[in-house]
Amino acid sequence: MVSCCRVALLGFGTVGSAVARCLTSRPGDFQLTHILDRGADRKRSALPAPGVAWTTGMDEVLRGDAHVVVEAIGGIEPAAGWIRAALLAGKSVVTANKQVMARHGASLLTLAARQGRQLRFEAAVGGAMPIVRALGDGLAGDRITRIVAILNGTTNAVLSCMEASGCSLHDALADARARGLAESDPSADLDGDDAAAKLAILCALAFGLRVDPSQIDTRSSADITAHDLARARAAGGAIRQIAHAEYDRDTATLTAWVAPIVVPRGSIFASATGAQNAALITGEHSGETGIFGTGAGGSATAVAIMSDLAAIARDRAAILPAPVLSSPELILGSTTLNAELAEHAENDLLCGLSGLCVDRRPYAEVV
Amino acid sequence: MVSCCRVALLGFGTVGSAVARCLTSRPGDFQLTHILDRGADRKRSALPAPGVAWTTGMDEVLRGDAHVVVEAIGGIEPAAGWIRAALLAGKSVVTANKQVMARHGASLLTLAARQGRQLRFEAAVGGAMPIVRALGDGLAGDRITRIVAILNGTTNAVLSCMEASGCSLHDALADARARGLAESDPSADLDGDDAAAKLAILCALAFGLRVDPSQIDTRSSADITAHDLARARAAGGAIRQIAHAEYDRDTATLTAWVAPIVVPRGSIFASATGAQNAALITGEHSGETGIFGTGAGGSATAVAIMSDLAAIARDRAAILPAPVLSSPELILGSTTLNAELAEHAENDLLCGLSGLCVDRRPYAEVV
Repeated sequence: MVSCCRVALLGFGTVGSAVARCLTSRPGDFQLTHILDRGADRKRSALPAPGVAWTTGMDEVLRGDAHVVVEAIGGIEPAAGWIRAALLAGKSVVTANKQVMARHGASLLTLAARQGRQLRFEAAVGGAMPIVRALGDGLAGDRITRIVAILNGTTNAVLSCMEASGCSLHDALADARARGLAESDPSADLDGDDAAAKLAILCALAFGLRVDPSQIDTRSSADITAHDLARARAAGGAIRQIAHAEYDRDTATLTAWVAPIVVPRGSIFASATGAQNAALITGEHSGETGIFGTGAGGSATAVAIMSDLAAIARDRAAILPAPVLSSPELILGSTTLNAELAEHAENDLLCGLSGLCVDRRPYAEVV
Repeated sequence: MVSCCRVALLGFGTVGSAVARCLTSRPGDFQLTHILDRGADRKRSALPAPGVAWTTGMDEVLRGDAHVVVEAIGGIEPAAGWIRAALLAGKSVVTANKQVMARHGASLLTLAARQGRQLRFEAAVGGAMPIVRALGDGLAGDRITRIVAILNGTTNAVLSCMEASGCSLHDALADARARGLAESDPSADLDGDDAAAKLAILCALAFGLRVDPSQIDTRSSADITAHDLARARAAGGAIRQIAHAEYDRDTATLTAWVAPIVVPRGSIFASATGAQNAALITGEHSGETGIFGTGAGGSATAVAIMSDLAAIARDRAAILPAPVLSSPELILGSTTLNAELAEHAENDLLCGLSGLCVDRRPYAEVV
């Protein structure tokens, strides 16, 4: 590390406070200069760090001497505007914001490249599971054809809790809330909107496609019952909220959807419990690559943010090229899926895919 | 990509020829300038690329105008000397050579940093499974405490073939050779030396430790019999060659070994068949992160090399800092393992670890 990297933090919630603790525990590498939070006055006693300026005004952050701004407030505005302002002020940005990256990622990354600054977003998808680097970097030498993934930790915690205890979705949600894994309004999680935003980001990384999250077909998991889970278990499977994207470059056809699916027990998807995320990536030359890890929570998300900060601190002049995205000719959703599965379901399910040797669609049935 | 990146290739074997095909299929991004191979005269007809200079002399490569040298010859010398010479000549280097990186990685990376050039080695560990980036980059914000992994594709192909067919190790080896997954002399694979070299590289990345592969305790898998596998299966498990490294920073004690181990069926290790590799990484904040993928073969290794080349082509001035490594106070091997497992084995095995929720050692027994 060349010299101490100065960091301003936007948002002091679950993720922001975990990042603040990491930063102040490494005074040689990082210096936390500002914390912007609406509740600055109330919260400042939570972090005993005398050198940090607490504020409620973005102008103060922009005028400050931070090299990097960490955005951990969530939501589209004011987050997107503040990221833009930080880049224009010559600061690099690390964000955990999937909604902003799904909708404005391309224009913000282009702005960052033009400014000679970096915009990094490992934390926006998969928590501590480093899927952004796996797709954007580690498998960049291959041509990716398919991504199948669990991308929403809250829904996964709810479904795996129902599975383990036989309880209702209502009770599983209460349990997830008690453990800090669900918001008071979990509809964006259960309905698939959160996973669709993350899937749109992965489509840009893996296929070079500009996809708006609203173009991704979603089917809600909010109506799953204990009876559905029992039926899946009797058939040798489990129910998970699966996000699926597959791109046929010859016809420029993207198939993309988020839906509750019966996956074979023994697959990496059924094995993902609690807030875990998992992904299976298919490449023309690499075959199947899998990755799983802690998909939600302050500590796991802070690891992704700290990893991005370490990359910036190591090389502040690193070049992150502006993305070149095209639009798919055609986007298909899950409506074609049921017909296809009707042919193969029993076969797929009974064969039981290991999650390691997937040569067919790694699930059995849309619930 | 700023401009076409010129690449010289050392070695035209399984990996080298796969890389050459990838490079010549992307003429806008890469230009293959030289191929160095002892059998240059004989092999040049295998690649219809008129602009490429075939040679048997490293001097010609060093005098040439390539930006990057890809080293795919294997073995320690002359590979290590040639990598050093390429860096001194102002070229960046991409290598698939685990033996060189395990023994000379730190000094070569230091030389590269001093030269303002890059030395990248994703292909040295795990084939297409991007574990070098996961540890060195994606989880860099965490403190890694343990790595448990399958790192040798040949041994895994042999053991999983024996398991599937009930055949002898001798017959499984013949099958692996026929499918291009085993050398004529597979002793470095079966004895654990290959996995130990890779584990030494991971110890440097994950723990910042300087470990010579010879310091890692290995137990051979060459004596595993069909009877051993049947016994493991009856107990609900499978046998895999596992590489294990765990670091206690408080006492600077590293536990590191490679041995055939009974792993629970359903774990990601038992699920890894054929030439697949798999790894489970434990971090203080991120918990368990898993990764698996195609661990051997020309195409998979070429993906890792092409990904490294893409990173260099994108940013030739990128800073890769020289590693700062320390030596462990104490290195323990597998001798302590049997006693520990004797206490927990039955319990661990019967509980059946999913490979996703590992809160204990993810295996049951040393074979």
